[in-house]
Amino acid sequence: MLIEKSCKDFVEVLASKEPVPGGGGAAALVGAIGMALGNMVGNLTVGKKKYKDVEAEVYEIMEKATKLQQDLLSMVDGDAEVFGEVAKVYRMPKNTDEEKAAREEAMEKALKHACSVPMDIIKAALEAIKLQARLGEIGSIMALSDVGVGVLCLKAALISGKLNVIINLNGIKDESFVSKVSEEMDALVEEGIKIVDETYAKVEERLKN
Amino acid sequence: MLIEKSCKDFVEVLASKEPVPGGGGAAALVGAIGMALGNMVGNLTVGKKKYKDVEAEVYEIMEKATKLQQDLLSMVDGDAEVFGEVAKVYRMPKNTDEEKAAREEAMEKALKHACSVPMDIIKAALEAIKLQARLGEIGSIMALSDVGVGVLCLKAALISGKLNVIINLNGIKDESFVSKVSEEMDALVEEGIKIVDETYAKVEERLKN
Repeated sequence: MLIEKSCKDFVEVLASKEPVPGGGGAAALVGAIGMALGNMVGNLTVGKKKYKDVEAEVYEIMEKATKLQQDLLSMVDGDAEVFGEVAKVYRMPKNTDEEKAAREEAMEKALKHACSVPMDIIKAALEAIKLQARLGEIGSIMALSDVGVGVLCLKAALISGKLNVIINLNGIKDESFVSKVSEEMDALVEEGIKIVDETYAKVEERLKN
Repeated sequence: MLIEKSCKDFVEVLASKEPVPGGGGAAALVGAIGMALGNMVGNLTVGKKKYKDVEAEVYEIMEKATKLQQDLLSMVDGDAEVFGEVAKVYRMPKNTDEEKAAREEAMEKALKHACSVPMDIIKAALEAIKLQARLGEIGSIMALSDVGVGVLCLKAALISGKLNVIINLNGIKDESFVSKVSEEMDALVEEGIKIVDETYAKVEERLKN
């Protein structure tokens, strides 16, 4: 599994011409890093007298964050898997009309499937952003900069997910599928960016004062 | 070394209350991922007939990118090291006036040193952004989305570096040092954001058409 590689090796194989990991896997890992920072903020908040009143809520957030962090990590390999399916279809023969038709049908199916992982990255990143934003309000002030780094990483994951959905949508002929996924994606990404930008601005403002 | 940990383990220890890695190390790793995507774009460009005319330039970019990618990876552990120095000073005694003075002097020195790694992250991210922007112009169109993901990761690293400089500057008493570093940082970050935003807009535009 890709996530079993050392960080050093992951970066090196990402840099190579190996088909995976690519931009999708990188987005998922950066999202997991962003959510992990939220968990860290939680861990630095609970058990402190000063934050006794919010402790129960922080524990709840951390439970959700741990799940999202694991989901995002699993999407690193999930993206590689759906990419592999598309690559397989690219190698299908296209000499006869029958072969062409079979290849086209398989491609449509593989590309639709390949949209699912970056869409999941977008959805997970948005949930993660909401948890981080709340941690920015109630979490330990000592870890405020980590909330900032967390939302910046999650924003990168969110918009990167979008780019990876777009490249798959580009090859899909089913117009109603394309417009449905596009609309859903745009709404999720827009919502996420808004929360990140508000959260980041508050973090920077508070750190400077 | 932190970068020898598996991606999975790195994310898990980042999520914990362990003092390192923190936001600084996360920023450096996300920067290395962003630069690695640039190298990948280069690797998918060279050796192709279509890109023969730009091949020499792409090889030059990849040489610089490989160095930056390694530098950013080494900053993951570099940040942990300077953080350790600050943490050590926090544990110094402060019972007598002499102890207080010694502690204050040591803290000033440790915090100044702790600024250096996130400043290096900012500088490396800016250089990496410039290389990615050029790859967006001349690199393989097949890898255009990876240029987009790359600049998004590098933007997260760049601004995260800034947050980590700010938290160290907050504790430093030497006003001329603080204003000098602040000014330099703001200029670098502003320049980087501008290039990222322009590059990203072009990438999204071209992917959608």
